[in-house]
Amino acid sequence: MRNLDEDNITRAVIAMHADAKDARVRTLMTSLVQHIHSFAREVELTEEEWFKGIRFLTEVGHITTDVRQEFILLSDTLGLSMLVTALNNKKPQGCTEATVFGPFHVEGSPLVPLGGDVANGAEGEPCFVRGSVIGTDGQPVPNAELQVWQADAAGKYDVQYARDGGDHEHRARGTLIADAQGNFHFKTIRAEAYPIPHDGPVGRMLEALGRHPWRPAHLHFLITAPGFDRLITHVFRNGDRYLDSDAVFGVRSSLIADWIEHPPGATPDGGTSDVPFYTLDFRFVLNPA
Amino acid sequence: MRNLDEDNITRAVIAMHADAKDARVRTLMTSLVQHIHSFAREVELTEEEWFKGIRFLTEVGHITTDVRQEFILLSDTLGLSMLVTALNNKKPQGCTEATVFGPFHVEGSPLVPLGGDVANGAEGEPCFVRGSVIGTDGQPVPNAELQVWQADAAGKYDVQYARDGGDHEHRARGTLIADAQGNFHFKTIRAEAYPIPHDGPVGRMLEALGRHPWRPAHLHFLITAPGFDRLITHVFRNGDRYLDSDAVFGVRSSLIADWIEHPPGATPDGGTSDVPFYTLDFRFVLNPA
Ligand SMILES: [Cu+2]
Ligand SMILES: [Fe+3]
Ligand SMILES: [Fe+3]
Repeated sequence: MRNLDEDNITRAVIAMHADAKDARVRTLMTSLVQHIHSFAREVELTEEEWFKGIRFLTEVGHITTDVRQEFILLSDTLGLSMLVTALNNKKPQGCTEATVFGPFHVEGSPLVPLGGDVANGAEGEPCFVRGSVIGTDGQPVPNAELQVWQADAAGKYDVQYARDGGDHEHRARGTLIADAQGNFHFKTIRAEAYPIPHDGPVGRMLEALGRHPWRPAHLHFLITAPGFDRLITHVFRNGDRYLDSDAVFGVRSSLIADWIEHPPGATPDGGTSDVPFYTLDFRFVLNPA
Repeated sequence: MRNLDEDNITRAVIAMHADAKDARVRTLMTSLVQHIHSFAREVELTEEEWFKGIRFLTEVGHITTDVRQEFILLSDTLGLSMLVTALNNKKPQGCTEATVFGPFHVEGSPLVPLGGDVANGAEGEPCFVRGSVIGTDGQPVPNAELQVWQADAAGKYDVQYARDGGDHEHRARGTLIADAQGNFHFKTIRAEAYPIPHDGPVGRMLEALGRHPWRPAHLHFLITAPGFDRLITHVFRNGDRYLDSDAVFGVRSSLIADWIEHPPGATPDGGTSDVPFYTLDFRFVLNPA
């Protein structure tokens, strides 16, 4: 293995891991090496461009913390995340479609009772969400667990207010358990369009590509129930100006719903609102495992 | 741009940067997106594997400092660095071949006078290096600048002894200026085989691939002279057991030379050595710019 040139190096690199114990690792790395090498050959990557790439990845690594995942942003904005979501979520007709996970999920968000307030102080216009979880047979899925999370009126998630990877309060995120009939409801704030964090290397990449960093307004859901496939999805707000240019390529028509505006007055929770408020209804259809 | 699936997402991502100002950026990113997506499709990348990849890159980013460049190690061990070197250093027959830069170069190494001691306290067996720099026409290249760097007897570069990205003394590295006839000579220590840093994510990757982290013994050179292409290369030590399995794929037959062993006694610098010592002679042929 000497005197490798642009034509034979790929085979040599792959031959070096011919004895890797795990066949899947071998498959993955063989394919990865082939495609990365093909890229470099196809564009005749210069040494300066290579080094810019090294510096870019270094910056992506250095800005990444527990609460800022720039590598996920990179994967999201290059469409890789949505591609992986599509590859792994081929569901029967009628199931609710999946979309990207995004970088803002947090493990262990607080349990909120049905009817409770998920916002927990997050700024925004009041919104009452109601929905149900059913199977493809139309039967209710009892007691499904729903994790919800969203940005506030300023377009930010709670974790984006955390400094230095430190603690943050859970705001506009929570975990609910649907009732025995698969129904749930909670209070929150209206979802707003937001730009993904773009003050770092991924933001500079988008700028160089002539792309904007905006995502259409959406509410994230992660729904689990015994006997059903886990569902990671959003509900998107109808009418949003970014529905056709989502920076992370996640929009699906079947996930768009109306946030209905109501004048000040009686609210679905039996109270009253001095300001206009919104309601959202959505039915999730899970795929039997 | 809604309802993207595994078949049409690649075109949608590329279409988003159709208006990027810089045509080369457009070319690079179009190709990169195509090849990364092809990889994910070809292996049907699972969501768990994707997340392992995100975590791997995050670790690569977090271990990277001013003196530890894990992204370069990653590029080197996947053969990308040598591929880029090959693509960008197609030289006329007779020129000294280039090889990988590696992650251990340091800007501004100390100027060492001809005949001086580059080792500067680094542990190792004494070695006297002598050589010349000529052009493809056989004429000497006067006053070429040569940066040299190498590992010590323990297989480590000076920067690997630095802690917390802090200062380090320059050892076994220096900058020399050849004389008007293109000749140079200096004292150093014998180059030794060494494992690339493998206590981090790249080391774990090599282990999963069933690969060793060793590089055959070599001495790095970066040679510049007005009117000639910059040459980044190594001289490899003949007889090294890793010449055919270099962890970074850099070995070229034309760069292998003998480190000749001499018994204790008179040394080329007019002194004497109580221990065996080595000599290395090498002639570099630069490509006119
Ligand atoms: Cu490819
Ligand atoms: Fe989001
Ligand atoms: Fe080296």
